[in-house]
Amino acid sequence: MANYLKIFNIPNHYQFHRGGQIDNGIIAYETWGQLNQNKSNALLILTGLSADSHAARHSANDTAGWWEYMIGPGKAIDTNQWFVICASSLGSCKGSTGPCSPNPRTGQAYRFDFPDLCLEDIANTSVLLCQSLGIDRLHATIGPSMGGMTALALLLKHSEYCKHLVHIASGMASPPFSTAIRSLQREAILKDENFNQGHYSAANWPEEGMKFARKIGMLSYRSATEWADRFPRSLKKVPEHAFGSEFPIESYLEHHANQFVHKFDPISYLYLSRAMDWFDGHSYAQPRGSNPLGRVKLDGALIIGAETDLLFPVALQTELHQLLQKAGIKSELVITNSIQGHDAFLVDQQTFTQLVGDYLVQSAV
Amino acid sequence: MANYLKIFNIPNHYQFHRGGQIDNGIIAYETWGQLNQNKSNALLILTGLSADSHAARHSANDTAGWWEYMIGPGKAIDTNQWFVICASSLGSCKGSTGPCSPNPRTGQAYRFDFPDLCLEDIANTSVLLCQSLGIDRLHATIGPSMGGMTALALLLKHSEYCKHLVHIASGMASPPFSTAIRSLQREAILKDENFNQGHYSAANWPEEGMKFARKIGMLSYRSATEWADRFPRSLKKVPEHAFGSEFPIESYLEHHANQFVHKFDPISYLYLSRAMDWFDGHSYAQPRGSNPLGRVKLDGALIIGAETDLLFPVALQTELHQLLQKAGIKSELVITNSIQGHDAFLVDQQTFTQLVGDYLVQSAV
Repeated sequence: MANYLKIFNIPNHYQFHRGGQIDNGIIAYETWGQLNQNKSNALLILTGLSADSHAARHSANDTAGWWEYMIGPGKAIDTNQWFVICASSLGSCKGSTGPCSPNPRTGQAYRFDFPDLCLEDIANTSVLLCQSLGIDRLHATIGPSMGGMTALALLLKHSEYCKHLVHIASGMASPPFSTAIRSLQREAILKDENFNQGHYSAANWPEEGMKFARKIGMLSYRSATEWADRFPRSLKKVPEHAFGSEFPIESYLEHHANQFVHKFDPISYLYLSRAMDWFDGHSYAQPRGSNPLGRVKLDGALIIGAETDLLFPVALQTELHQLLQKAGIKSELVITNSIQGHDAFLVDQQTFTQLVGDYLVQSAV
Repeated sequence: MANYLKIFNIPNHYQFHRGGQIDNGIIAYETWGQLNQNKSNALLILTGLSADSHAARHSANDTAGWWEYMIGPGKAIDTNQWFVICASSLGSCKGSTGPCSPNPRTGQAYRFDFPDLCLEDIANTSVLLCQSLGIDRLHATIGPSMGGMTALALLLKHSEYCKHLVHIASGMASPPFSTAIRSLQREAILKDENFNQGHYSAANWPEEGMKFARKIGMLSYRSATEWADRFPRSLKKVPEHAFGSEFPIESYLEHHANQFVHKFDPISYLYLSRAMDWFDGHSYAQPRGSNPLGRVKLDGALIIGAETDLLFPVALQTELHQLLQKAGIKSELVITNSIQGHDAFLVDQQTFTQLVGDYLVQSAV
C-alpha cells in the first residue's frame, strides 16, 4: 500500500447491491485542499474504469495524476477553494479491496468469490467514506466515463447527497455498442490460457488476453478523425514476418497494450467492466416508465459530451439532460467538438478546464 | 466447384502487383442478362471481402444472392437491359484460386506461398475476365465496400476501361480506425492455436479465432444507433456461468460468429483483409501531391456513403468526390442517412435501389 494513500474501513455489515459481504474491506483515497468548517466545500471525483485515486499531485505524492491539468491550486478544480476527494474504486486493484485482495477468511485472493460488484457499490462506499469525513452533503460529484455512471448511481441511491453534478462522457446506461466492446474485452481475458479461471500469477500472467483487451478498448477511446490526423499512411514499415505489424496504427495499439498489461489486475478488470454493463439508471423508474431521476434533488448539473465519443455517444448526454430538466433540475448540456473522442476529458485541456471551472465558479455563488 | 459457376482461366504469365505468379489459376464468376452486339452494356460488380460471385439468383442457381434486391429483371440493376458480371475475388475461397487452393506444383494448398495479394490483382484479373468476354469497355463498375476500393484500383490501372463508376461505402484508402479493426481480426486468427501457421484442417479449424475475428468485425458493420434501437436492455438473460453471455448484443455477436466461422477460409481472410489495408489510391499520384485520379477517364461517377458508416466514414467519400471533380469528371455525391452503417447497401433497399437505379437509367441516355 503506497504511503500517500488514506484508508477508509468499509463497515463489515455493508451489503453489496446484488448481495454479499466482505470482511475488513477498505477504500484507498486521496484528498486535496482543506475541508471548511461547514464541511460544505467537498467535491467527490468518481473515476473511469482504469484510473486510481491519484488524480493530481499533492504534498505527499509529487507524481502527476491522471487529471493533473484539472485539479490543483488555481486550476479549474481549485484546491485553494475546494476539498477534493478521489478514491480508488471498490473492486479495483489500486489500493481498495477487490477480487485480487486476500479474503481474510481464507488468506487467499477472493478471485471469483468476490461479491458481484455494481457501480452502486462504488457509489455507496464512496458516500460512506465521505460521511466518515463528516460530510453531510457534497457540493458536487464529478464523474467522467464510468465515474459519470457511478455518479448517477450515487444520486439514485442517495438522492439528496449532492448539490451539483458534473457528468462527463457518460450516460444512464451502456449502449449495446459499448457493451459489445467490453464483452469482447472480457472474452479476450477469459480466453487466455494463463487466466486459468482466475488462478493466474505474476509468473503466469494472462498477458496476451490483457493486451488484446486493451487493443480492443483503444478502438473506442479516441476517434477515427483523430487517428486519421495522427497516422499518415506513408509511415508503413516492413513487417518482420508475413502478417506482422506494418501499419503505424498497429505499433500504436501494441505500445499502449504493453503499457497497460501489468498495470491492471485481470479479474478486477472483468468485475468493473461488467459493472458498467450492468448499470441501468432507467431501472430506477418507479413506476416503470416514469422519470428515473424524478426523486433526485440537485441544485444544478453540467452534462458534457463530445461529438466524436463512440463509447458514450451524445444521444446519451442529451437523454440525461432531458431527464434532469423533466425532473425540474437546472441542467446545462455542452457537446464539445473535441476530436479526441471518449478521451477528450483527459486531453482537450482548454475546453474542459473552461467548462468545469466556469461551472464550479457559478455553483459557488 | 458449384456447377453454376463459370470459369475464366488466368494466363499463367499474369504477374501479381507485388510480384509472383500462379499456375492454372482461375476466376469463378456468374453473369446475368445478355451481352448486346456492341458489347457496350456490361456492368462489373466488385464484391466486399466475404461476398462471392452469387450476387443474385439466375436460371442456373435459384438461391437468393447477397445483393438479391438490387439485381434482376426490372430491378435497379436491370438484367433485361444490362449484362452483369460478378466474380469471386482472386484470393478468396469461393471458387476462384486463393491461398487454400492446391498449388499444382506441389499438390498441397498454397497457404502462405500464395503470392502477396493486392486489390490491384483482383482488379487486373477482373479486367482480363471481361476482356475474355470481348468487352473493350465496361459501361460501369459497381463496387461496395472492398469492391469500391477494387473499383478504384481498376480505374487507376486501366484508366479508360470504365465509362461509369458506382462507388459505395468505400474510399481511396483505409483510415487507421478500419485498419485497426482489421489488424485485430487478423491477430485473432493468427493467434488461434489451431491456425498452426496456416496448417489447419477441417478437423482442427481455428474456430475460436475466426469467431472472435467476426465479432470484432461486427463492431464496424452496423451502427451504434441501429443497435441501440434493436437491443432493448430489458432482454438481459441469466448467464450460465460467471461472466457468461447475458446481454442481447452478446447473443447477436455469437450468432453471427457461428454463422461465419465455417463459411470462409482463414488464410483467404488474412490475404483479403491485408489487401484492403495495403490499398492506397493516393500512392498513384504522379508527381507526388498531384491528383491520383488525374489520368482516369470516366463519363461520370456516383459516390454513395452513409452518415453512420464507421468503417468507411463520409470523409472518404467526400474526398473521392472532390478528387474526381478536380480531375474534370462529373461526380455525384450522396450521403444517406441510413442508420445501418457500413451495411446500409445490403439493408436499406429503398434508398440504394433508387440511387443506383436512377444513376444507371441516366447513364444510359
